[in-house]
Amino acid sequence: MTEEQVEQAEAEKEPEQEVDDRLLRLAAEFDNYKKRAARERQEYVALANERLVQALLPILDDLERALQAASAHEEAKLEEGVRLVHRSFEQLLQREGVEEIDTSGAFDPHVHEAMLAMPSAEAESGAVLDVVQKGYKIGSRVVRPARVIVAE
Amino acid sequence: MTEEQVEQAEAEKEPEQEVDDRLLRLAAEFDNYKKRAARERQEYVALANERLVQALLPILDDLERALQAASAHEEAKLEEGVRLVHRSFEQLLQREGVEEIDTSGAFDPHVHEAMLAMPSAEAESGAVLDVVQKGYKIGSRVVRPARVIVAE
Repeated sequence: MTEEQVEQAEAEKEPEQEVDDRLLRLAAEFDNYKKRAARERQEYVALANERLVQALLPILDDLERALQAASAHEEAKLEEGVRLVHRSFEQLLQREGVEEIDTSGAFDPHVHEAMLAMPSAEAESGAVLDVVQKGYKIGSRVVRPARVIVAE
Repeated sequence: MTEEQVEQAEAEKEPEQEVDDRLLRLAAEFDNYKKRAARERQEYVALANERLVQALLPILDDLERALQAASAHEEAKLEEGVRLVHRSFEQLLQREGVEEIDTSGAFDPHVHEAMLAMPSAEAESGAVLDVVQKGYKIGSRVVRPARVIVAE
């Protein structure tokens, strides 16, 4: 077709056809968007992990310094280093919105996991007697339930 | 409008109007998809972080056990615990695809950061003399460059 013929064909287009074209274009755009969204979702996850990994590296550095102190038999420096690592670790988790699950009250099946039930002279039935493993949550989501021993 | 009137109106629809309706529906669907995609992206990031946090918790447990050993003045147990924490930490990073950046050869500005240039009798100019801080990468992405001292 020459340019003139194309122009003529465009001018002759029926209104339905124009709407049809818009429909096709929108469908193609939608399709592209879906593909891009799936790709971006993966990239976001990779970037989110990378950000957390980046925050972990200084803790790994401190840990290695503590190990060097251990190799040099500098016990005080080792202990100080481990305390530093622990503090940094806790701060990192805090920044990520991680909170320790409360175990001071009664057993709560939503956030606690009963490992054992034991008779108790002092505690009320259903009270948490001891914590075997600390539990953690992010907001209302339980990342790991607290493993506890419960009063019978 | 009564049901009959609605049916009549539907029957009277021009073909253009039908295509127009499809266009509107598709546009609305597209819009909803965009909103959902943005929401899902955030959820994916939160879940990805939660997965990593979950993997970190056993390391935190070991760290706390090591600190308990320190408080009990069990030096050997403390050191053993710290080595365990370090090993777990390294394994976690490995699983995340994190690799240490090689510093055995010549200075590479893509993965190294020169902190200092020093004259050297033995090393060739541009060789890495010492590593001040280890660097890490995920695939070809540099998470943190290796900070090095370079031969002048």
